[in-house]
Amino acid sequence: MPSRRLIRPRTSPIITLTTDFGLRDHFVGVMKGVVLSIAPQAEVVDITHGIQSHDLVEAALVLQSSYSFFPAGTIHVVVVDPGVGSSRRPILVKTVRYFFLAPDNGVLSSIYSNEQPLQVYHLTKEKYFLKPTSSTFHGRDIFAPVAAWLSRGVTPGKLGRKISDPVRLDLPTVRRIREGVLVGTILRIDKFGNLITNVSRHDLSGASRGIPALSVNLAKRQIRKICRSYAEAKNKELFVIWGSSGLLEVSANQASAAELLGARRNQEFRIVIKK
Amino acid sequence: MPSRRLIRPRTSPIITLTTDFGLRDHFVGVMKGVVLSIAPQAEVVDITHGIQSHDLVEAALVLQSSYSFFPAGTIHVVVVDPGVGSSRRPILVKTVRYFFLAPDNGVLSSIYSNEQPLQVYHLTKEKYFLKPTSSTFHGRDIFAPVAAWLSRGVTPGKLGRKISDPVRLDLPTVRRIREGVLVGTILRIDKFGNLITNVSRHDLSGASRGIPALSVNLAKRQIRKICRSYAEAKNKELFVIWGSSGLLEVSANQASAAELLGARRNQEFRIVIKK
Amino acid sequence: MPSRRLIRPRTSPIITLTTDFGLRDHFVGVMKGVVLSIAPQAEVVDITHGIQSHDLVEAALVLQSSYSFFPAGTIHVVVVDPGVGSSRRPILVKTVRYFFLAPDNGVLSSIYSNEQPLQVYHLTKEKYFLKPTSSTFHGRDIFAPVAAWLSRGVTPGKLGRKISDPVRLDLPTVRRIREGVLVGTILRIDKFGNLITNVSRHDLSGASRGIPALSVNLAKRQIRKICRSYAEAKNKELFVIWGSSGLLEVSANQASAAELLGARRNQEFRIVIKK
Repeated sequence: MPSRRLIRPRTSPIITLTTDFGLRDHFVGVMKGVVLSIAPQAEVVDITHGIQSHDLVEAALVLQSSYSFFPAGTIHVVVVDPGVGSSRRPILVKTVRYFFLAPDNGVLSSIYSNEQPLQVYHLTKEKYFLKPTSSTFHGRDIFAPVAAWLSRGVTPGKLGRKISDPVRLDLPTVRRIREGVLVGTILRIDKFGNLITNVSRHDLSGASRGIPALSVNLAKRQIRKICRSYAEAKNKELFVIWGSSGLLEVSANQASAAELLGARRNQEFRIVIKK
Repeated sequence: MPSRRLIRPRTSPIITLTTDFGLRDHFVGVMKGVVLSIAPQAEVVDITHGIQSHDLVEAALVLQSSYSFFPAGTIHVVVVDPGVGSSRRPILVKTVRYFFLAPDNGVLSSIYSNEQPLQVYHLTKEKYFLKPTSSTFHGRDIFAPVAAWLSRGVTPGKLGRKISDPVRLDLPTVRRIREGVLVGTILRIDKFGNLITNVSRHDLSGASRGIPALSVNLAKRQIRKICRSYAEAKNKELFVIWGSSGLLEVSANQASAAELLGARRNQEFRIVIKK
Repeated sequence: MPSRRLIRPRTSPIITLTTDFGLRDHFVGVMKGVVLSIAPQAEVVDITHGIQSHDLVEAALVLQSSYSFFPAGTIHVVVVDPGVGSSRRPILVKTVRYFFLAPDNGVLSSIYSNEQPLQVYHLTKEKYFLKPTSSTFHGRDIFAPVAAWLSRGVTPGKLGRKISDPVRLDLPTVRRIREGVLVGTILRIDKFGNLITNVSRHDLSGASRGIPALSVNLAKRQIRKICRSYAEAKNKELFVIWGSSGLLEVSANQASAAELLGARRNQEFRIVIKK
């Protein structure tokens, strides 16, 4: 019944963009123009274009916190591409629910860990690229047009050939140096100055929703306060909390924990779990 | 006749977003993913994500300058939420033309003043929230999904229960200290360095479109020039003008009045009206 | 057959926005609200709002790198408007494939050079403006509503009257000072620190895809390395490359050429072509 289908004429999946292009230049707008030229009905959603230039780890983490909140069928395009124009491969990863398009530089590493089964394709069919294909802007010339064709129903097998050796990043892992003592790493600092660490519930075994009594030793401070929401703490008080991406965060109420601690990305810290 | 309805198949209202999330992180993208997962036909429009962290007054002012330019039925979502996870209530405000979703922290104060009649609901029906519901990211877990369900036609009464005591902010008011002398406040400084004040036409009684002869005494300067457009002034000349939001602004032609004056937000100034 | 047309119900063209409004204020969101109030089916795409305040040359260059990547029929709106409210005219330019809406201050100069034939209209029909029409925010009150009406099929002739004397900017040209020696100018610096110059293939006659042997003399450095992709160079090595907009760029692999050279916009440099 046509009148009911009108309510949702999205026959085309969503295409998301995650890049280090920033918003000052024309790069992002042009990618959208290319997508809409091929797939006029596509809906393009920005995840972020604020990844630091060439920062594969940051992009991998942002993607990990984002991708699963989109509807099945979404095409996630990630363009952080220091090796653009070199022999690094452009790839397509197909999981049960999603597609991912990115340079084969490890930026999809978190997907390989979280999503099984998956297939990886090397994008080789140049007929789906923009012509002439530049060697400096594959976001415009390869990833945008391939995303658009994929959204129009071109199957992965027509876009390239299967590979089994995609590049993986080594993300910093939590180290257990002795019973009850862990070494974690600050992975990112968000806009509010929260320190997002690599410590997951899995690392604090026994923790389901709460956090066991512990102390985070960071920048010569011992942070013992554990909160379930920012507002539980006093103003500017430092505390530890499960963040919204399922990772341990060091935060401060209505203040930047990063500033209060002088903390920086990749900084290590100790967690001492109380017995 | 289906073919005519195709021209405008928006059976779903627009959802706008105003937040202090910035654009570096995944927060905004994830909110859109949540909306589109529930309401695939929704159209999400960013008003701004550049509100300063936790700045309720700035958000209230931006909303006031924006909301009425959207079509009737628009759902305005405002997430500036220093008390996220505390007992502060998530609320829905229904006016004759619009819906507003926000934490109950006063960020909708300008709506309470401008729009009558209105109903306010405390969002209590957790079945419309994302599960598990975090205590740190209600933009993703409460406001985005409720906006999506609302856009699909779920009525306010199903989303929560009516309340009559929403929190209101005290916005700085214009004080009349004696006949012809007012004290105003700089509410915001925009991207161009224009100083947006809290002085409205109402405060300069008798002013309809123009500005009466007056002097703005600010930062040891007396600004007497009154313009109807930026270009009327000389380069870098300071002047007073009715801004596009209907508030008095102190501006400079092709220069930042904020820089020229060293002015800052919340700074008070005097207006001396000539007789 | 309705069911097939559902796949592509875009009966309305895309509207792109290029402005110096930034993303902190409500300006861009409000323009979208105005468009969607008039043309609910419109799709608005941001090219950038990061043009430096009042920088007509930067806007002209961004537009030049972007507009042709959008589908035929796209309406490109450019609002960088230091003379807003003055007697400068709001104009509409119609080319074979596109529409452009902008203040008549030269910001469309690159279109006049690249696109022929074209018609230029002075937008005079105030019935298509927002009322009351402010003298400080024509993006909201003139350009957004006219774009929306245009997208709904109102013809250019109904929006204003033809003119033949649009304002043109003088963009810096490449000077040949003697056989094999050129003087070029840095037009822009992009987010990655690449220096985009005004040197095109036309200026290096004989160059088709490659770059002839040459030396760029800039900031007391001689850059002789020529690359076809960023990754060909060593880390932080400076080199010359054809950029994705078809202009010569000075770049560095995974580093900012602008920072390495202390280069700034509008800086001139010499090119010495080897014999």
